[in-house]
Amino acid sequence: MRRVAVVGVGSSRFGRRDDANLSELAFEAVKPAMDEAGVDSKDIGFASVGTVGTWYEEPLPAVVVAEYAGLNPTGLVRCEAACASGSGAFKVAHQSVASGESEIAMAIGVEKMTEVDTPTTIELIGRAGNYLWEFENVGITFAGYYALYASAHMAQYGTTEEQLAMVAVKNHKYGAMNPYAHFQKEITLEQALGSPFVAWPLRVYSCCPVSDGSAAIILASEQAAKKLTDTPVWVKAIGTASDTANLSKRPDYLGLRATMQASKQAYERAGVSPTDIDVAEVHDCFTIAEILAYEDLGFCEKGSGGRMIEDGETYIGGRVPINLDGGLKAKGHPLGATGCMMIAEVTRQLRGEAGKRQAPIKNGLGLAHNVGGTGHYCYVTILGRE
Amino acid sequence: MRRVAVVGVGSSRFGRRDDANLSELAFEAVKPAMDEAGVDSKDIGFASVGTVGTWYEEPLPAVVVAEYAGLNPTGLVRCEAACASGSGAFKVAHQSVASGESEIAMAIGVEKMTEVDTPTTIELIGRAGNYLWEFENVGITFAGYYALYASAHMAQYGTTEEQLAMVAVKNHKYGAMNPYAHFQKEITLEQALGSPFVAWPLRVYSCCPVSDGSAAIILASEQAAKKLTDTPVWVKAIGTASDTANLSKRPDYLGLRATMQASKQAYERAGVSPTDIDVAEVHDCFTIAEILAYEDLGFCEKGSGGRMIEDGETYIGGRVPINLDGGLKAKGHPLGATGCMMIAEVTRQLRGEAGKRQAPIKNGLGLAHNVGGTGHYCYVTILGRE
Repeated sequence: MRRVAVVGVGSSRFGRRDDANLSELAFEAVKPAMDEAGVDSKDIGFASVGTVGTWYEEPLPAVVVAEYAGLNPTGLVRCEAACASGSGAFKVAHQSVASGESEIAMAIGVEKMTEVDTPTTIELIGRAGNYLWEFENVGITFAGYYALYASAHMAQYGTTEEQLAMVAVKNHKYGAMNPYAHFQKEITLEQALGSPFVAWPLRVYSCCPVSDGSAAIILASEQAAKKLTDTPVWVKAIGTASDTANLSKRPDYLGLRATMQASKQAYERAGVSPTDIDVAEVHDCFTIAEILAYEDLGFCEKGSGGRMIEDGETYIGGRVPINLDGGLKAKGHPLGATGCMMIAEVTRQLRGEAGKRQAPIKNGLGLAHNVGGTGHYCYVTILGRE
Repeated sequence: MRRVAVVGVGSSRFGRRDDANLSELAFEAVKPAMDEAGVDSKDIGFASVGTVGTWYEEPLPAVVVAEYAGLNPTGLVRCEAACASGSGAFKVAHQSVASGESEIAMAIGVEKMTEVDTPTTIELIGRAGNYLWEFENVGITFAGYYALYASAHMAQYGTTEEQLAMVAVKNHKYGAMNPYAHFQKEITLEQALGSPFVAWPLRVYSCCPVSDGSAAIILASEQAAKKLTDTPVWVKAIGTASDTANLSKRPDYLGLRATMQASKQAYERAGVSPTDIDVAEVHDCFTIAEILAYEDLGFCEKGSGGRMIEDGETYIGGRVPINLDGGLKAKGHPLGATGCMMIAEVTRQLRGEAGKRQAPIKNGLGLAHNVGGTGHYCYVTILGRE
């Protein structure tokens, strides 16, 4: 496989973005990514657009995004992997370069979630699993799916509501330092624990918001990267996995098998271990999801994720700083944008450009962990300075 | 780039398939493809699912398809490129093997279009372009888009309604020999010319039907392919291109630029020319689309596509036999399935397994041409026996 580097990243401000349509929103990420890489749309050999878009009036979102970005006649595909659609697009763009098909490729992640009213969004997200058997027949919501995991984890390992809330407090702390974040304000443990229940034990402050946003990544072959930048960030490995559509077919609700499998694959392919990772972005669509990620990615033992946040191990200065851009919880989670945004953040961290939320970088290795649905999809990407 | 071979293909019967849900329909292609390749789901290193699925109640079609096919925990992504979604999935699976990520990968194309009523389908397909500016404001339908091309081609080159009808007659002739086709009956020129107008000059018999169906392809590295089969069919090249979402931004309606660009790229990458191709599948969603494809793929001069069908050059025995499985016109066009089905048919032709609709194979080269929308996307895949 050819070596591939990230040579440019860009992102829009996340939040309720009534001021921009889908194409305009995507371009807010595409333009700075191309500027940073010093490339033009004609240099892009292949482009992938990660977006779920079930709610769009435009059924071909990639073509409107690509036209507005001036990408025609570049070859194009839309990738969907639920909440991991951005990582799906990143993988597809990566493989275009890794295989030798192109020298430079672009992944664009974008989602305009507020185009429809919130109940519609919530219903559509609730369908993200096996609609027929679980949403339609049982009536479970998306928060309900993760609440199954949260309550099982509490019952088995003694994880507490306070520990769940501590994840929200940390991510809001860092979100407050991120000018791109949907929520740029700190919250207290009391606020988090006092917010209303959505699906016990998950409360309003346990859930990521409904956001609009975009992120874009330019990838280049080794030869092209060396011409374009002095600070390439290399794609060391991508691991991928899937799990059953039906949650009822899973053996337990104590962790996401797809995360365990995708991260094992990524670590093996990169030849690194969890203790080598300096900084990580993990998929915290709900606070319990971040605790599961600590364990399933091997940052701590199974069952000790609650203690890991309680001990401050995932703050700057801790064992492995996590979600220093605010995570999905505070930065927002525009589905297709998230995977690309995670890679943009890890890239900035590895380049030492994260300002006051900069993690100490020792080994030059970062990780992005993006889950689709309730572990239906998982993509784990390891990036490195060398 | 590593050499990659098609080592197994499978397809469902196309048509109105009320007897199968999406997952069952996909499995009708997956099972024979895996059987033919002699592989099991655990051998698949990565899987892509091509489906548009705007009309599904399941917003994550790939996960329900993958679970039913026993693919978990294989890494997974859904690809959408409108009517070329199956080719998008094929490209993504191809690059997984070509890059060295996996030894064996699978592309699944599937579409269940009759899940919603026909007016809904027609509206959703009408949106395939730039919904906001063209469908919503101008009110153009999908047949209307291609009617613009047909009327421009007639005005500029003297292409006749009879020539358009001849495409339908040819494709129904071969569809009648294909047990997988939606329509397995021949039609006469008089029938085609006597059918009602949908959007002048396109009539009912100028349009492909609304169909359900699936196709699946197993791809393998050179090393794996040699162990699995004595008749590998090699992926010589894939070319891709895109064009403006807005048709109003195109310079003329005489051909599809995306086809010209994607095929040029594919020919150059494969080191072959149009005259080397023994057999082709081209995207005949409307009869005019097949005539444009003859020209845009370089099988004849621009403007002489009408004469090419009139002279019988695309029948068996002609210069380049085209759409010998009935094409989209007679076989049906379940959007996501089409690209994979084309590659399955070209594979069968190159292996000499097409029975009474077998083309003579001289150079051992075949081509699949799959268009998304009105030339918004194009994928051209060249396959070869060597």
